[in-house]
Amino acid sequence: MERISVTFLGPVASFSHQAAVEVFGKSAELSPRVSFADAFTSVQQGEADYAIIPCENSTNGSVVQTLDLLADPSNLYQHVEVCGAHYLTVHHCLLARRGVFTSQRDYGSVTKLYTHPQAWGQCERFLGTHLRGIERQDVSSTSKAGEIVSKETTERSAAIASHFAAEFHDLDILEENIEDKADNTTRFLVLRNIKSERTALPFEALRDGGAEGAAATAPMTRKTLVSFTVRQDTPGALAEALLTFKNYGMNLTSINSRPNQRNNWQYVFLVECQTAMSDEDKGGVTKVLGGLQSVTETCRHVGTWSE
Amino acid sequence: MERISVTFLGPVASFSHQAAVEVFGKSAELSPRVSFADAFTSVQQGEADYAIIPCENSTNGSVVQTLDLLADPSNLYQHVEVCGAHYLTVHHCLLARRGVFTSQRDYGSVTKLYTHPQAWGQCERFLGTHLRGIERQDVSSTSKAGEIVSKETTERSAAIASHFAAEFHDLDILEENIEDKADNTTRFLVLRNIKSERTALPFEALRDGGAEGAAATAPMTRKTLVSFTVRQDTPGALAEALLTFKNYGMNLTSINSRPNQRNNWQYVFLVECQTAMSDEDKGGVTKVLGGLQSVTETCRHVGTWSE
Repeated sequence: MERISVTFLGPVASFSHQAAVEVFGKSAELSPRVSFADAFTSVQQGEADYAIIPCENSTNGSVVQTLDLLADPSNLYQHVEVCGAHYLTVHHCLLARRGVFTSQRDYGSVTKLYTHPQAWGQCERFLGTHLRGIERQDVSSTSKAGEIVSKETTERSAAIASHFAAEFHDLDILEENIEDKADNTTRFLVLRNIKSERTALPFEALRDGGAEGAAATAPMTRKTLVSFTVRQDTPGALAEALLTFKNYGMNLTSINSRPNQRNNWQYVFLVECQTAMSDEDKGGVTKVLGGLQSVTETCRHVGTWSE
Repeated sequence: MERISVTFLGPVASFSHQAAVEVFGKSAELSPRVSFADAFTSVQQGEADYAIIPCENSTNGSVVQTLDLLADPSNLYQHVEVCGAHYLTVHHCLLARRGVFTSQRDYGSVTKLYTHPQAWGQCERFLGTHLRGIERQDVSSTSKAGEIVSKETTERSAAIASHFAAEFHDLDILEENIEDKADNTTRFLVLRNIKSERTALPFEALRDGGAEGAAATAPMTRKTLVSFTVRQDTPGALAEALLTFKNYGMNLTSINSRPNQRNNWQYVFLVECQTAMSDEDKGGVTKVLGGLQSVTETCRHVGTWSE
């Protein structure tokens, strides 16, 4: 069989890239996409077997670009389904070009800092203690910050980026785990094309092969994501739709709403629910969707997976 | 009575500033705040009678900074309540320093453009037709773009900003309504302190005085916003809570979830619901809150208003 091809939200050495390596291993053919929409398109059009994209962060909440593509009000990604999830804890390091700083914690003489705007806020304690007042330059990603520093020759500059980016750009690690919150975690979703035979095997099976024995120890739950719209002229329609999940024994774990992009203040709802792992539950999803169809305007099964 | 004091999300001449003028008139004492949190704090601490902040855009969806402050997981804004809403249609203009361009549509010779990153995407059609390839500089707000252009003397630069910003910074309007989507609308919320006697009068009454006769013609609905958390160990708890609204005849119009900032993947839910305008409904809100208290972990009435 050909190598599995996977697209991720770039640039290279991004957290999505790291998640792709953790899930698919280094033997897969991994390629970056410049936008969330491009990652979805690569799966819809069959250019890639899988895509992996961030969907939620434990501190910042949902990633709206991903929600909008999953909500898909214009039906651009009808063949894209969610088949898996991966959790990645966000650790930041202080990084510099090889050899510029002579010892590991020699960061008192740093003259300039580069990172993504969000990372400043995530490392406030460390920066306030050790690098107060140092010039800061915003960059489009933490990985890009690492790349810039790897090529910088005129300054004693440092980047805030991941351990993964340090390896990728061959940088010295001056300090590890400089983030304020040790458990800041991003959840990634894995996407596949429902028409693809190459990816028809349950994603967990593929994954278990890669990360040996993981499935045997980790308790798994089964998640289902459904999108729907309700008629605006029917009071109580949203409550009725949500009640359907309860009626079929599905526990709602998250609800999001995104503009439907046709009529102002009308939404596509994205509901995630959870069931125990059993054969009966697969029938449960079918029943919930049947029930939803009678109380919603449009309704779509976006995916069911184990995590 | 002293002048009413109102804070808004700055800088001056921002869309929030425009919304504040439209709601409170020019006689109110209006002052900008640099962040969403500062606007909330000004009301919580009684520095201002009211604050006005954006909460949702018809194209981009919810403003998460506002949701996080309304969700208020750390109880910093216990005395802040929502007392009104205002809708503002987002129109963009192409603006230049007075006299630099000789006739109104003389923008073929523009050499540089300034605006907020989001505005590029909102004016793609106009920019693609008339200003393709012109250097673009991102700025922190459209109003700031207007200010920069008003002071620029070396270039034939132009800003994309509102008509309101053009007046404020005394700029020439080269073109009006250059946005792609004519009905792109932002909804603002008005905040007051529940302990304040100065603002105890229903907000609509104040507003009707300002915009004479508006209330007589516009059909109004009554909105209520409630925040709550549910116990994680109780399956079906979220559905149970949402069902409460239906049981008391409240129509759910929007649901959002935000991280509770204590435990990963646990949320504060923000639910907006709607009732007809009558005295009975005021009792309805009390009943819903009573019902919610028995099925939620925490629950708070964030506000009830007419719009």
